[in-house]
Amino acid sequence: MCRWLAYYGDPVPIETFVLRRKHSLIDQSLNSQLGATTTNGDGFGIGWYDELGGLPGTYRSVHPAWNDRNLRELAAHIRSPLFFAHIRASTGTAVQETNAHPFRHGRWLFMHNGVVREFARLRRALLLAVDPELMPQIEGSTDSELMFHLALTFGLEEDAVAALERMAGFVEDVAEEHGVENPLQISVAVADGERIVAARYSSEGRSGSLFFSTDARALKKLYPDIDEIQGLSDEARGVVSEPLGDLVGAWNEVPESSVGIVQAGEDELRPFTPRREGVRTG
Amino acid sequence: MCRWLAYYGDPVPIETFVLRRKHSLIDQSLNSQLGATTTNGDGFGIGWYDELGGLPGTYRSVHPAWNDRNLRELAAHIRSPLFFAHIRASTGTAVQETNAHPFRHGRWLFMHNGVVREFARLRRALLLAVDPELMPQIEGSTDSELMFHLALTFGLEEDAVAALERMAGFVEDVAEEHGVENPLQISVAVADGERIVAARYSSEGRSGSLFFSTDARALKKLYPDIDEIQGLSDEARGVVSEPLGDLVGAWNEVPESSVGIVQAGEDELRPFTPRREGVRTG
Amino acid sequence: MCRWLAYYGDPVPIETFVLRRKHSLIDQSLNSQLGATTTNGDGFGIGWYDELGGLPGTYRSVHPAWNDRNLRELAAHIRSPLFFAHIRASTGTAVQETNAHPFRHGRWLFMHNGVVREFARLRRALLLAVDPELMPQIEGSTDSELMFHLALTFGLEEDAVAALERMAGFVEDVAEEHGVENPLQISVAVADGERIVAARYSSEGRSGSLFFSTDARALKKLYPDIDEIQGLSDEARGVVSEPLGDLVGAWNEVPESSVGIVQAGEDELRPFTPRREGVRTG
Amino acid sequence: MCRWLAYYGDPVPIETFVLRRKHSLIDQSLNSQLGATTTNGDGFGIGWYDELGGLPGTYRSVHPAWNDRNLRELAAHIRSPLFFAHIRASTGTAVQETNAHPFRHGRWLFMHNGVVREFARLRRALLLAVDPELMPQIEGSTDSELMFHLALTFGLEEDAVAALERMAGFVEDVAEEHGVENPLQISVAVADGERIVAARYSSEGRSGSLFFSTDARALKKLYPDIDEIQGLSDEARGVVSEPLGDLVGAWNEVPESSVGIVQAGEDELRPFTPRREGVRTG
Repeated sequence: MCRWLAYYGDPVPIETFVLRRKHSLIDQSLNSQLGATTTNGDGFGIGWYDELGGLPGTYRSVHPAWNDRNLRELAAHIRSPLFFAHIRASTGTAVQETNAHPFRHGRWLFMHNGVVREFARLRRALLLAVDPELMPQIEGSTDSELMFHLALTFGLEEDAVAALERMAGFVEDVAEEHGVENPLQISVAVADGERIVAARYSSEGRSGSLFFSTDARALKKLYPDIDEIQGLSDEARGVVSEPLGDLVGAWNEVPESSVGIVQAGEDELRPFTPRREGVRTG
Repeated sequence: MCRWLAYYGDPVPIETFVLRRKHSLIDQSLNSQLGATTTNGDGFGIGWYDELGGLPGTYRSVHPAWNDRNLRELAAHIRSPLFFAHIRASTGTAVQETNAHPFRHGRWLFMHNGVVREFARLRRALLLAVDPELMPQIEGSTDSELMFHLALTFGLEEDAVAALERMAGFVEDVAEEHGVENPLQISVAVADGERIVAARYSSEGRSGSLFFSTDARALKKLYPDIDEIQGLSDEARGVVSEPLGDLVGAWNEVPESSVGIVQAGEDELRPFTPRREGVRTG
Repeated sequence: MCRWLAYYGDPVPIETFVLRRKHSLIDQSLNSQLGATTTNGDGFGIGWYDELGGLPGTYRSVHPAWNDRNLRELAAHIRSPLFFAHIRASTGTAVQETNAHPFRHGRWLFMHNGVVREFARLRRALLLAVDPELMPQIEGSTDSELMFHLALTFGLEEDAVAALERMAGFVEDVAEEHGVENPLQISVAVADGERIVAARYSSEGRSGSLFFSTDARALKKLYPDIDEIQGLSDEARGVVSEPLGDLVGAWNEVPESSVGIVQAGEDELRPFTPRREGVRTG
Repeated sequence: MCRWLAYYGDPVPIETFVLRRKHSLIDQSLNSQLGATTTNGDGFGIGWYDELGGLPGTYRSVHPAWNDRNLRELAAHIRSPLFFAHIRASTGTAVQETNAHPFRHGRWLFMHNGVVREFARLRRALLLAVDPELMPQIEGSTDSELMFHLALTFGLEEDAVAALERMAGFVEDVAEEHGVENPLQISVAVADGERIVAARYSSEGRSGSLFFSTDARALKKLYPDIDEIQGLSDEARGVVSEPLGDLVGAWNEVPESSVGIVQAGEDELRPFTPRREGVRTG
């Protein structure tokens, strides 16, 4: 399984939550090797929005994140008010930059932890449903990139939550046609520079986890020695596939089948309900 | 444009024709930079059959061939009676191992120099025609890998020439449907360990070049100082997308729209005629 | 031979002069393949100072620059008032990130085009002269990285020009001891965030070239369609190992054995005279 | 810490003990993540002697071994009667091919697991002691490569055991001069195509482990389903830094401060005693 983090708030260097300190995404990933989980050594990626606006940038690599010197440089020098970071554990798919998250389309970034079961069997039918105008952008071989392009096909840029629900419902429809049970288990995040939409869902009700930081005060307690974090305003929030650190109360677990929206003003938390429209794929 | 070489004959180290000497594939590629052609610096690959038989091996890399130390090692140590070597010049497609030639399916290797015009527009329809059982094997984003899987779909393993002709005809059919003129310009080679089938074709009659070595005597004249080549029997033959060296008479240019078969006993040279069956792709 | 570019002036995205357009460093490098020069495909690097100050960042890669997608992303998103860009053509030394320019020490960046003749023979004696405190930083195997650490040993951080002259003189002393004639041929640049110091020198008086842009008006004429360049103030200047574009009058060639300093206020141009102190290396 | 394996005996494909099965070097490395040890994800290498003799070949990569497709190909196709395999866990040194094991000089291969304590401080003095003729071959920045070149300087090609003992003694001498206690902790192997010499030593008597397979019968019990191993003669032996599999009696632990020689005829096991000659390094 992969791991990811999304940040929204005061502009900070990407390294702030991603590396070089205890309880960072990459530190956590290495420690998790001591537990029962996989090594996330099959590439990584970051995606960020500049303070000045404009399209997001990405840096994706096939190297393990923990020893990638370029990542350290960039994470120290790039400041951003909204960024994604993702570390990958491949389950057989090629380790190549085009399979690394986040994926991008125009202003949108997408990243994912989870799986489409029996993807090799379902891939063709799913690919067929992608808008032919979008298909040339698909360069890798992951289920994640394909889910992103399905969501784009289903209107992600107009209504992100509805498009993700249509995507999930469509995958379930196609899986049913092919006799694949419980096809989806996803923790997914998208952003457009203004907001982060993050959903947790699985067909069988046992999805990967998803957490929102409670508020900036909790983050400050978690990293008492880091000036940049101590200076954060109350707007600063993190969304993670697994909690960073073990501070009780720092993270709210998002319930099964939910989608959260982090944005200026009030955040939102709603049920996530795949829209199954019985799409026929011929 | 890419460049490639196929060898059939007495087992020799792969380096014999591929690198480390004047008139080798890679030397030639670097020299060609002084001419009007592209730098072939976007990855390379070799594929070879062992002397003992069995499935072929491949080594594919995203580095420029000229400074890849692992290639030098392997090419010096791997002996083979039938091998492919390919150096790539990307025209925009991602530089990743899964886009490097040769491609493999079971006993078969495939490599290619050329282009499917407006591939981005045609890709979806071509992909749809691939046998759903084969589709999960497609990991990259090149026209070449897709052509290989179309040829496999059309029976490459039973009748290689017919399958390549059906593949070419199918691409032309799909291109016509989409209003793409003169879609194909290819120099393609496949092998199964027993024989090499190499075809040259373009929709407009101006394909990339293709050459067969005239006989081992010509190769020996081209490389007078190389013991391994001087010891070759008359069975040894090379097929190349561009001639190595400038020795007059060493290479026979294959005519437009032709396919040659290099094998034990008599070689064959036949017309290559795309089989256009007016396939409808919905 | 390598190629490099240094920029000083109004903050611009690094891509402005480095890629994606005619007359950029990388475009030029590819075009130069049509000429008589080498392909610069053996890695590249950028180094930049942030607008906010602080230590410079670097991004160094072993891939050819022309197809490196991460470079495109970073060059589009990183804005800087002073940056270096370097593309490498190895002459046998390993293609690895630690051999890519620019090199960094504290606030200082260093890059280089040229050669120390018979470096393999001289390396040991040169390495011995490096300050033992600095030696652990040497991670690669190039003459360039070693020259940088010699210059640091000789006081680069206090007086950059004098330290470069001492470094050049010391290399000539060591070469003489070893019977190596005309050991140096260099076009070298260093920066500390406030100024660029660039020198051209060769032992035999035939060094690689070095050019300063005449003034921002010349740059504006060279790139009439690029808003970011049209908006530059008169402070903006470039230093390059070979001129970008072929606009007459846009570039001043620095004379043999000269060193230029680009900084706020008046630039300087002075003779560059190796300081030969007859150092004994035992 | 790294991990390594050396094989001597009937020619087998390198994959036999290196990957693709339970109790292989790479499988073991991934499983060890569940234990208390490090992830060996910072590159790997293989080195092998051909059945026909000649210089050994090497393949070294910066990718994690577990997902490197080229490694799988080569390990399946290269047969060898004597090979090394090494997987690396960097402790800060750059992840680059020139830092990957095994290292080679002429007919000799060298690989290592362990550490020279405070290497950054000792490196200069150690480097100075390397034969100036050999120094140009040092391309990376590891203690391991430097130890190899010291051993070569001290006569490895004439008397391998004595040279390794001199190397160890010299490192201890230099460390003492610099006030570094207990500098060495090594499990090291060298080979010349005829024999493997493997030593275990640490200055404080707590070195990394080293094991020899007891005999081919034990290997056969460990891999009951693998024809290639079942067909091995009694000559086949393995040397490993950690045992593969958990079969009691399959591996003999080499005692502290010992060196073993695997060769045709009788193997040898002797004390390993650093030769401290009080070398002065100025």
